[in-house]
Amino acid sequence: MAAITYDVGMSRWEPDAPGRLARAALDLYVGRGFEQTTVAEIAQRAGLTERTFFRHFADKREVLFAGSRALQDFLVDALASAPESATPIGAVVAALEATGPLFQERREFARQRQAVIAANAELRERELIKLASLGSAMADVLRKRGVADPAASLTAEAGIAVFKIAFERWVSDAGEPDLPQCIRQSFAELKSVTAGS
Amino acid sequence: MAAITYDVGMSRWEPDAPGRLARAALDLYVGRGFEQTTVAEIAQRAGLTERTFFRHFADKREVLFAGSRALQDFLVDALASAPESATPIGAVVAALEATGPLFQERREFARQRQAVIAANAELRERELIKLASLGSAMADVLRKRGVADPAASLTAEAGIAVFKIAFERWVSDAGEPDLPQCIRQSFAELKSVTAGS
Repeated sequence: MAAITYDVGMSRWEPDAPGRLARAALDLYVGRGFEQTTVAEIAQRAGLTERTFFRHFADKREVLFAGSRALQDFLVDALASAPESATPIGAVVAALEATGPLFQERREFARQRQAVIAANAELRERELIKLASLGSAMADVLRKRGVADPAASLTAEAGIAVFKIAFERWVSDAGEPDLPQCIRQSFAELKSVTAGS
Repeated sequence: MAAITYDVGMSRWEPDAPGRLARAALDLYVGRGFEQTTVAEIAQRAGLTERTFFRHFADKREVLFAGSRALQDFLVDALASAPESATPIGAVVAALEATGPLFQERREFARQRQAVIAANAELRERELIKLASLGSAMADVLRKRGVADPAASLTAEAGIAVFKIAFERWVSDAGEPDLPQCIRQSFAELKSVTAGS
């Protein structure tokens, strides 16, 4: 698709510039490797300028993690607005299941992103840090909901473990299950393994 | 205590040089901050040379993580030699409990180490990566023991969550509980929170 640009006063408005840049970046990361790809190449492939790239992303690594903040905000809101009657783990799992629509129709993107991350130690570390940060944010909300420690921390850690395993399955399973279903199964499995001592 | 050195042929044997360097490093990290401490200062405080420091540690960060490899090897061995009749989570928790003697009499060191790590983003990330690596190693052993995924991954993740929370409690609790006891309590709590959905 050719790049369509509109002149809006002094600057240009690029329709879905972040999406096009992310798509171009991922194609290049998959095709030639994350390390070998430059921002100039990403911009060129997206039919945009490097300047536009840097208006949306701090560097080529951030293309892969730009959604992390939105995911965290979504989970925090979902958890904070869970009914008071919900158990801590019930509220966490429901919040995780509610992320389904955020990822729907992005499974192929998520799958390729996961492969790029798996191939690079620095990116794997960044992904771990992102997950840990999600866990801390959820534990904070649980504390605000009156859950004491260590239950708050353990519930959040359990939620992150469930999400991590469910997400891996969702992106890799040939049967293309939906993400909320993977989360419910992963949680059922966690209950089953922790019960078996 | 003055540094005692022995001439052994061309080189010198420094009794417990790594221990003295680690102790000196931690004193400085706590006293003036990790960033502000140099290897020269650590060596001087330990009564040793910088060259001796670099014979034992790659850099000042590694002083804090030198025990990680030994811990991982210990856990892998303990898990691999668990009785066949043990459930996966039972074997993981028993292996974690068995680390108690490794840390005993090192609680003050562990407490100070934790404080230094908590104050520095780069060190917190390194600690997360270390824990994730422990989890991967335990999941590998479980797979070799015939546990299928996702149970292997979830059991290892659950074990890491239990260990993390237990260790934090062990270093910070004024009642000075022992580590295996904290691990048992943390595991009981995880069972309780995951059951409550």
